[in-house]
Amino acid sequence: MFESIRSDFPILNQQVNDEALVYLDNAATSQTPQPVLDAIMDYYHEDNANVHRGVHTLAERATYKYEVSRQKVADFIHASSSREIIFTRGTTTSLNWITRFARTVLQPGDQILISIMEHHANLVPWQEACRATGAELVYLYLKDGILDLDDYQNKLSSKTKFVSLAHVSNVLGCLNPIKELTEMAHQVGAYMVVDGAQAAPHLPIDVHELDCDFYAFSGHKMMGPTGIGVLYGKEDILNLMDPLEFGGEMIEFVHEQESTWKELPWKFEAGTPNIAGAIGLGAAIDYLNDLGMASVHSHVQALVTYTLPKLQAIEGVTVYGSKDPSNHIGLISFNIEGIHPHDVATALDYEGVAVRAGHHCAQPLIHYLGISSALRASFYAYNTYEDCDRLIDAIIKTKEFFNGTL
Amino acid sequence: MFESIRSDFPILNQQVNDEALVYLDNAATSQTPQPVLDAIMDYYHEDNANVHRGVHTLAERATYKYEVSRQKVADFIHASSSREIIFTRGTTTSLNWITRFARTVLQPGDQILISIMEHHANLVPWQEACRATGAELVYLYLKDGILDLDDYQNKLSSKTKFVSLAHVSNVLGCLNPIKELTEMAHQVGAYMVVDGAQAAPHLPIDVHELDCDFYAFSGHKMMGPTGIGVLYGKEDILNLMDPLEFGGEMIEFVHEQESTWKELPWKFEAGTPNIAGAIGLGAAIDYLNDLGMASVHSHVQALVTYTLPKLQAIEGVTVYGSKDPSNHIGLISFNIEGIHPHDVATALDYEGVAVRAGHHCAQPLIHYLGISSALRASFYAYNTYEDCDRLIDAIIKTKEFFNGTL
Repeated sequence: MFESIRSDFPILNQQVNDEALVYLDNAATSQTPQPVLDAIMDYYHEDNANVHRGVHTLAERATYKYEVSRQKVADFIHASSSREIIFTRGTTTSLNWITRFARTVLQPGDQILISIMEHHANLVPWQEACRATGAELVYLYLKDGILDLDDYQNKLSSKTKFVSLAHVSNVLGCLNPIKELTEMAHQVGAYMVVDGAQAAPHLPIDVHELDCDFYAFSGHKMMGPTGIGVLYGKEDILNLMDPLEFGGEMIEFVHEQESTWKELPWKFEAGTPNIAGAIGLGAAIDYLNDLGMASVHSHVQALVTYTLPKLQAIEGVTVYGSKDPSNHIGLISFNIEGIHPHDVATALDYEGVAVRAGHHCAQPLIHYLGISSALRASFYAYNTYEDCDRLIDAIIKTKEFFNGTL
Repeated sequence: MFESIRSDFPILNQQVNDEALVYLDNAATSQTPQPVLDAIMDYYHEDNANVHRGVHTLAERATYKYEVSRQKVADFIHASSSREIIFTRGTTTSLNWITRFARTVLQPGDQILISIMEHHANLVPWQEACRATGAELVYLYLKDGILDLDDYQNKLSSKTKFVSLAHVSNVLGCLNPIKELTEMAHQVGAYMVVDGAQAAPHLPIDVHELDCDFYAFSGHKMMGPTGIGVLYGKEDILNLMDPLEFGGEMIEFVHEQESTWKELPWKFEAGTPNIAGAIGLGAAIDYLNDLGMASVHSHVQALVTYTLPKLQAIEGVTVYGSKDPSNHIGLISFNIEGIHPHDVATALDYEGVAVRAGHHCAQPLIHYLGISSALRASFYAYNTYEDCDRLIDAIIKTKEFFNGTL
């Protein structure tokens, strides 16, 4: 089934440095299938107009498509209502907005619990919230390459006002047990915030079952376009929150000195939204639903399970995180002894294999792991076992080249 | 010349309610020519990858295209350097960010000068900045349908810390003399902020000559895609400003409790940007440059000059703003006596003519004009004299229908 979808991704059918492209940088940006691009083009070819404000036919069609996409997002993550779905520029904006809300709640001495594996987007905004309020940023650390649950139990207290965690780590690939963590957070009265950027592309998401208070993710990592993301929040909490941006669309009445806001979700969507982006994200959700999220997940995990032991068998290769492939959702981070990861990535690129090298926007984790950077191969629905073999072969060749044995 | 470009806009070649579409809602959202859509598709078909962080070929190509687009924007508005160009979600986000900076500067008793013609995006964020800081929001009013310059002279004082004005009003269409206004603002030590959303699509913009401190505009009103906009700021001021969003891409070093930022412009661009959107905006600028902004402006003003007297000649029609067509950059707002503007817009839509009806995100202006809403016809490079005739004919027909004389 998954081999056959490759024709939906024309970008994969290209040569890079005279080799067929193997794209394994999906955790950064996934590729966008033709049906999603067609949905975007159809919008621009037929319906392009501003939403909500117009009574003419194009404006009504644009508004309809935009709001249908919101409902698709709500259904995709099992939100209670589309009122709980705010379109943002991406996960980063979603998380920044949550921390802006946190600033209105936090008092000096309050604690925010995050983990050492967090992406900078779920870390730096919390540093700033602490700086602004006098709250304290408390870190959870790892045990056997995954989140140390004892550490969580020990650090969670009545001082904890927010717990904010990746659903899936963008470096380790581990899946944090959000449902259980949320239950414990709620017992001490803390809000649970989930960075779902790496989970939403790979797993069936049910925010109702997770019971988290906020869930953030991006379109461009799940076959959607760039520049669109989602902030899910429980309706009663979103109702408590002040708007984060002000302008057209989000107001009810504007007087010279004061204004009132629209109801959810529009009070959070000031100005002309990324209409084509939202429609593209809706089409990406259609595409993923057609594949089936459970199937996407099992296909990707089959690739990870196939690749992980082959990678570990290469002398001098260190894999970060758990030894268990089921703790590597969609990705494997690693290094080769004695060769700088940037040199490895450049050498792999000569072989047509695209992987990422660097700190992966998780410098505290990279530092905690005792390294300065790492390689990351990340997989998606259109990747194949052949892609995995090409990765392994290219790594072996790179090693031989740098060791002077090629 | 401008008749021939219509084939670049497939959306215009459609029937609405069995009539050929006449699209006159360009001040809300302009149409996107095929070369811009092709540039977006080329990106997704060939280069789609995350920017700045990758060493592989696709990431390098994506980064190159993204940064070339930034340079195109800088050249388009005559910024000194691409470091002064921040990509945002749109004008609304750009203006919100400026007002976030203002909050760090404003003291109780300070004054912000805006005009009664401002769009909510350049009004509500200032209300919030005042609420947060104790500063005072002072309004400038109109004289003969344009900004009252005496009022400006009288209200500008050493208390004024920010002046924030539309370059072109989205309801009246008048062009505010920003260069002169800026010179006066700088004499009292105030920052000059310009909402260029309606000006950038129509006029050659030279921020160097205007000498304004900030300039904000959106891609979707100037033949670009939705979800992308620009915040221009003078480099020395941007260097003073704190980042507005925090996350990946904008950091230099992240430690557990503190972080440092990248240099301009990246310190303001947290997370994965709207890469395809920025590339699309760059392509829109290429398209507009090929037409020539002076030519676009003179074509659109020829249409306005043709339409305005015909509209004024219809009994019961009131045109808002100046009597002089040169004070109606790209648009005309009006009402028909005795018929609600929403009913007019609906009736025009039956004739295939798309105009906007409502408060145009400028409720204080609409209230000041003594009305509750208005119609707006707005023109762009692909509109024709025939479009203008269709508008006039449809208005006459609508009037006759509602008067029972049809």
